[in-house]
Amino acid sequence: MPETGCREFPDPMPAPNGRTVAESRVDMVELVLPNDANPLGNILGGRVMHLIDVAGAIAAKRHSRHVVVTASVDYLDFVHPIRVGQLIRLQAFVTRVFHTSMEVEVHVFREDFKTGDLKQTSAAFLTYVALDDEGRPAAVPPLILKTPEERRRHREALKRRRNRLAIAAGAHRRYFEEKP
Amino acid sequence: MPETGCREFPDPMPAPNGRTVAESRVDMVELVLPNDANPLGNILGGRVMHLIDVAGAIAAKRHSRHVVVTASVDYLDFVHPIRVGQLIRLQAFVTRVFHTSMEVEVHVFREDFKTGDLKQTSAAFLTYVALDDEGRPAAVPPLILKTPEERRRHREALKRRRNRLAIAAGAHRRYFEEKP
Amino acid sequence: MPETGCREFPDPMPAPNGRTVAESRVDMVELVLPNDANPLGNILGGRVMHLIDVAGAIAAKRHSRHVVVTASVDYLDFVHPIRVGQLIRLQAFVTRVFHTSMEVEVHVFREDFKTGDLKQTSAAFLTYVALDDEGRPAAVPPLILKTPEERRRHREALKRRRNRLAIAAGAHRRYFEEKP
Amino acid sequence: MPETGCREFPDPMPAPNGRTVAESRVDMVELVLPNDANPLGNILGGRVMHLIDVAGAIAAKRHSRHVVVTASVDYLDFVHPIRVGQLIRLQAFVTRVFHTSMEVEVHVFREDFKTGDLKQTSAAFLTYVALDDEGRPAAVPPLILKTPEERRRHREALKRRRNRLAIAAGAHRRYFEEKP
Amino acid sequence: MPETGCREFPDPMPAPNGRTVAESRVDMVELVLPNDANPLGNILGGRVMHLIDVAGAIAAKRHSRHVVVTASVDYLDFVHPIRVGQLIRLQAFVTRVFHTSMEVEVHVFREDFKTGDLKQTSAAFLTYVALDDEGRPAAVPPLILKTPEERRRHREALKRRRNRLAIAAGAHRRYFEEKP
Amino acid sequence: MPETGCREFPDPMPAPNGRTVAESRVDMVELVLPNDANPLGNILGGRVMHLIDVAGAIAAKRHSRHVVVTASVDYLDFVHPIRVGQLIRLQAFVTRVFHTSMEVEVHVFREDFKTGDLKQTSAAFLTYVALDDEGRPAAVPPLILKTPEERRRHREALKRRRNRLAIAAGAHRRYFEEKP
Repeated sequence: MPETGCREFPDPMPAPNGRTVAESRVDMVELVLPNDANPLGNILGGRVMHLIDVAGAIAAKRHSRHVVVTASVDYLDFVHPIRVGQLIRLQAFVTRVFHTSMEVEVHVFREDFKTGDLKQTSAAFLTYVALDDEGRPAAVPPLILKTPEERRRHREALKRRRNRLAIAAGAHRRYFEEKP
Repeated sequence: MPETGCREFPDPMPAPNGRTVAESRVDMVELVLPNDANPLGNILGGRVMHLIDVAGAIAAKRHSRHVVVTASVDYLDFVHPIRVGQLIRLQAFVTRVFHTSMEVEVHVFREDFKTGDLKQTSAAFLTYVALDDEGRPAAVPPLILKTPEERRRHREALKRRRNRLAIAAGAHRRYFEEKP
Repeated sequence: MPETGCREFPDPMPAPNGRTVAESRVDMVELVLPNDANPLGNILGGRVMHLIDVAGAIAAKRHSRHVVVTASVDYLDFVHPIRVGQLIRLQAFVTRVFHTSMEVEVHVFREDFKTGDLKQTSAAFLTYVALDDEGRPAAVPPLILKTPEERRRHREALKRRRNRLAIAAGAHRRYFEEKP
Repeated sequence: MPETGCREFPDPMPAPNGRTVAESRVDMVELVLPNDANPLGNILGGRVMHLIDVAGAIAAKRHSRHVVVTASVDYLDFVHPIRVGQLIRLQAFVTRVFHTSMEVEVHVFREDFKTGDLKQTSAAFLTYVALDDEGRPAAVPPLILKTPEERRRHREALKRRRNRLAIAAGAHRRYFEEKP
Repeated sequence: MPETGCREFPDPMPAPNGRTVAESRVDMVELVLPNDANPLGNILGGRVMHLIDVAGAIAAKRHSRHVVVTASVDYLDFVHPIRVGQLIRLQAFVTRVFHTSMEVEVHVFREDFKTGDLKQTSAAFLTYVALDDEGRPAAVPPLILKTPEERRRHREALKRRRNRLAIAAGAHRRYFEEKP
Repeated sequence: MPETGCREFPDPMPAPNGRTVAESRVDMVELVLPNDANPLGNILGGRVMHLIDVAGAIAAKRHSRHVVVTASVDYLDFVHPIRVGQLIRLQAFVTRVFHTSMEVEVHVFREDFKTGDLKQTSAAFLTYVALDDEGRPAAVPPLILKTPEERRRHREALKRRRNRLAIAAGAHRRYFEEKP
């Protein structure tokens, strides 16, 4: 009879047919400390971005079973401030796999443990590339979709990717190629 | 229709009749970094203890809706090493409430994202005291037990508490009272 | 005759007519340390994002003479890896002012001090809101444009802002309003 | 004539007959900083536990001349709060050696430099295992006892060890063996 | 009969006639971690300087019973490298009191716990100013000298102070006053 | 036509005839955070020293194209306090090369972004030794002097070096050789 807290953990078996979204999903929570904040007591945007990347990278590592590097982060905003002494909560899950890369969606929440109030403050889309032990891109197993919601996110990931490639092409032309 | 990742979050309503174990349960995961480890690449025991306390304190804060301080930690061992580059995963949940204090149980797991292997490495019992804004002990809401497993842990918490009080009495007599 | 290193520093005078781009421009450089990197020795994306936000926030503080909060970050990618032992160099400058907010552009470079090689690895656009001492949005002084390049960036900032507002509206509708 | 501060340091000679308790004894002191504390300004329990483990590990390394890993920590409580701006002082010394492991006792004190007040806040017993360069358990030199107090601690260490093994056996049966 | 490790601690009594050198003496030891070091594995000079200042400030706080600020550091060199995995050990003690300031001497040692080898790597002289709760300089109690060695250091402190004032005057004229 | 912010960066070419002072010059700026400060809110001297060494080491690395170690720091004082929420700004540049070592001068400024006020708070002279990949001292390329100011600093570096060697000789005789 299962009785410890780990019964919902991913099965450590090989995954020739891929892994489900739930298998690599990440939950994280941290207390906001004084050094994370500006003099008014609000968490620094850079600290939130750092945690978003950590959560997203863990989801990508769990799905791919590889070391990963962050390739890109989509537009991201901070809708509600999070303050020293409150909790920052993050959830990350893979939305779509592209041969050697993965799109991961990360949700950020502010949790006030004194009132129980919970508000989503950001949603982010990051792309990670899986690397083998020599640092070369490695193939990523398929993503098994189970719910209508997962299928919707998977469909939309393709549009985001096209958009991303268009922005990147323009940005790189400007910043990396126009130098004399 | 619920569609974001936050559907299982605690309801931010008042809790005159207490809160369930699930409402304050904590899930955390962290990547083990070089500075967390000894020269052989194994995580330092003190780093694990620090994370255990952070996870336990967040569970106690969520249940009590108060700032908390750590009062004690029971015997704790480290059964399997965790290495740089692996993940450390923690789960914490309240087991019993004692007027102004709470016992929290924390499980620690080593997760190897390359193999999917997951092993429990420690189990810890911590006691936290809830404090009001002036730093005085504050009453903690009742704990609503839902499963046989939660009821078993609740029963056993009483035995652990008696044991703890006996050890503490002996220790304090020796270390704090026997000085000349 | 000026002889110390600070001769090019901004003049600490009031600025009724605004401040130039050069007055708030930021230069930063950091050594990449083991804890900033993944097990293959590449800097973590989240560490780069954190430094981008720090550099951008300092430019926004210098221009506005106020505490600032990060409101958003545009699409951002990491074109070249930066490794432990190399230098990460950042430059940030205000491109346009919008009443109480500012767009700041941040360039990230990888500098290999052993070869002297210097490569731009990212370009980022962030929006910061200036806050007064009570935490309310505060008016930002005008930006004085001096070069054709500054005028081009200023023009393009408006397009980016329109784009940003459109993305944000869509994102918020989805993530914050569609819950049941 | 000895005149520098290092005259009381351990002699760097081999120790075929073991080393005294004094040779590996550790003294540490740290200033409590804002990030070490909760919003009421009290040091986090996890920060104290981390420092206890650091102090204990240094004593075990000095005695064994090996890298060590933390095997266990006995029941531990926090009798007096320590606040931001105060000093936390730790003393660690080996109490008994068991072939490849050592018991270390750590005392924690709160020191208020403004009043000179000094209070013991915790006493901890930790077990460390010495490892050779391949990570295998390594034999630890004998402990030379000099004072009645050292002999008393040495005797009591055996009782603590028996107690510890009994608790561990129970805990591991529950947490690691009862899963279905 | 005294039996705990704290018997040699300073007496928390007022000190109208001053305090001895031993009462404020500081002992610290830290393990050198990967993030403290350059890519060749040697501790960064800045990390050593940081620890020197921490040790010296604690001695100055213990003697003065006040918050202190660092006023100056004399010439300082690093004679032997300290490597990741070794221990850095520091000792600090007040040498002379000047109304509201104190000179503190700090010795730095490299300790190799594998060989027992212990080498002094630096000696530093720092000056600290005691501040009251409004941040104004506060009078410091006299220093009670007990040994010939303490008296010699006390005498030499005066020469160092004269030297220091001469260097500072020259430096400030150049760096702070010669600007146009 | 150059249009990015990197046009003034050092040319990544080999330097048989040496490199100019400007090629290795360093600019850094950091926000002072709560953990960097004492309870009165003033930056800790040790934090400033750490940043001085980081800035100086980057200049020495850029000039020598080698890993460097800090050999010494001259007398250094802190003329104005820097407070939490203010900026600390550092500039570093090589003043003279001595076969395998370099003298670097570092200026520290306090910048108050709310008033625009900028004050030099310290000036430091550090010596760094260049190391090859086996950790042996490596020859450093010549320094090309362009301005009268650079020539003056270069001349004065020689006097400082003589002074330094005299102080070091005395210090080492006392601290390292007089032991019985």
